[in-house]
Amino acid sequence: MRLTVYTDYSLRFLMYLALKEDRLATVSEIAASYNVSKNHLMKVAYELGVAGFIETVRGRRGGVRLAKPIEAIRLGDVVRSTEPDMALVTCFKPIEAPCAIRRCCVLREALERACTAFTDVLDEYTLADLVRPRSRLRSMLSIALPSKATADASHVR
Amino acid sequence: MRLTVYTDYSLRFLMYLALKEDRLATVSEIAASYNVSKNHLMKVAYELGVAGFIETVRGRRGGVRLAKPIEAIRLGDVVRSTEPDMALVTCFKPIEAPCAIRRCCVLREALERACTAFTDVLDEYTLADLVRPRSRLRSMLSIALPSKATADASHVR
Repeated sequence: MRLTVYTDYSLRFLMYLALKEDRLATVSEIAASYNVSKNHLMKVAYELGVAGFIETVRGRRGGVRLAKPIEAIRLGDVVRSTEPDMALVTCFKPIEAPCAIRRCCVLREALERACTAFTDVLDEYTLADLVRPRSRLRSMLSIALPSKATADASHVR
Repeated sequence: MRLTVYTDYSLRFLMYLALKEDRLATVSEIAASYNVSKNHLMKVAYELGVAGFIETVRGRRGGVRLAKPIEAIRLGDVVRSTEPDMALVTCFKPIEAPCAIRRCCVLREALERACTAFTDVLDEYTLADLVRPRSRLRSMLSIALPSKATADASHVR
């Protein structure tokens, strides 16, 4: 069972922005931190923007940042947004591959219920949970500490 | 989110055998019924045999049949067998794509829990549930009715 690379990158992208807190990040710096393709991440940034998770600030010193508080971004919502069809097996897309038994298939029902259970668990997590090991993550991604006031607050966590 | 085509075919293969009841089926007839590649299904048959779900009877009139009662084959077990790594995202396979934050990633924990919830739901279903609409499925797959005694029993379900 695989999520798309696109979902994988989207989640890591959001984590990076969560660690930057109120500061802007660029796609280039995120790509460098994770050592992944900048081209892929530009698509990710576009789609996360359309979905309302991030916002873009234009200009020479522009970049991207989260559009919502980290506690308000649930993982299930991100995955449902980046994996829109959740077509677990080809027969979920009858046009692609019509299955002989599609009309009375209990398997579809089972897989659909399993899929809901999957995203329900992810809804128990928000972006705030993902960045809980804040100082270690910052160090691994070479993200500098934010301004003094914010840094003090983050030590309390 | 996708299961492999291989899992999809494995589940449909087992359903076919469940509908044949005690009679042998050949890979060719199953491929023809679902209108899928015989080559793919030979691999499926081999792997389902190794996993102990089906058994092969040799000889000119040979074929395959289920190795267990349909009530004893849980969907979760099949999926865990056919999707052995359940590597939802590439970072689950660190050799393929080492992720910068692998060592303190809460995302992994969330995805692993979600994955368990997924297969737990599938464990609520056995092959017996999948072939409950027995007569309709038989008709869609052009599977002849079994011998009188078995047919009578299946009408009761």
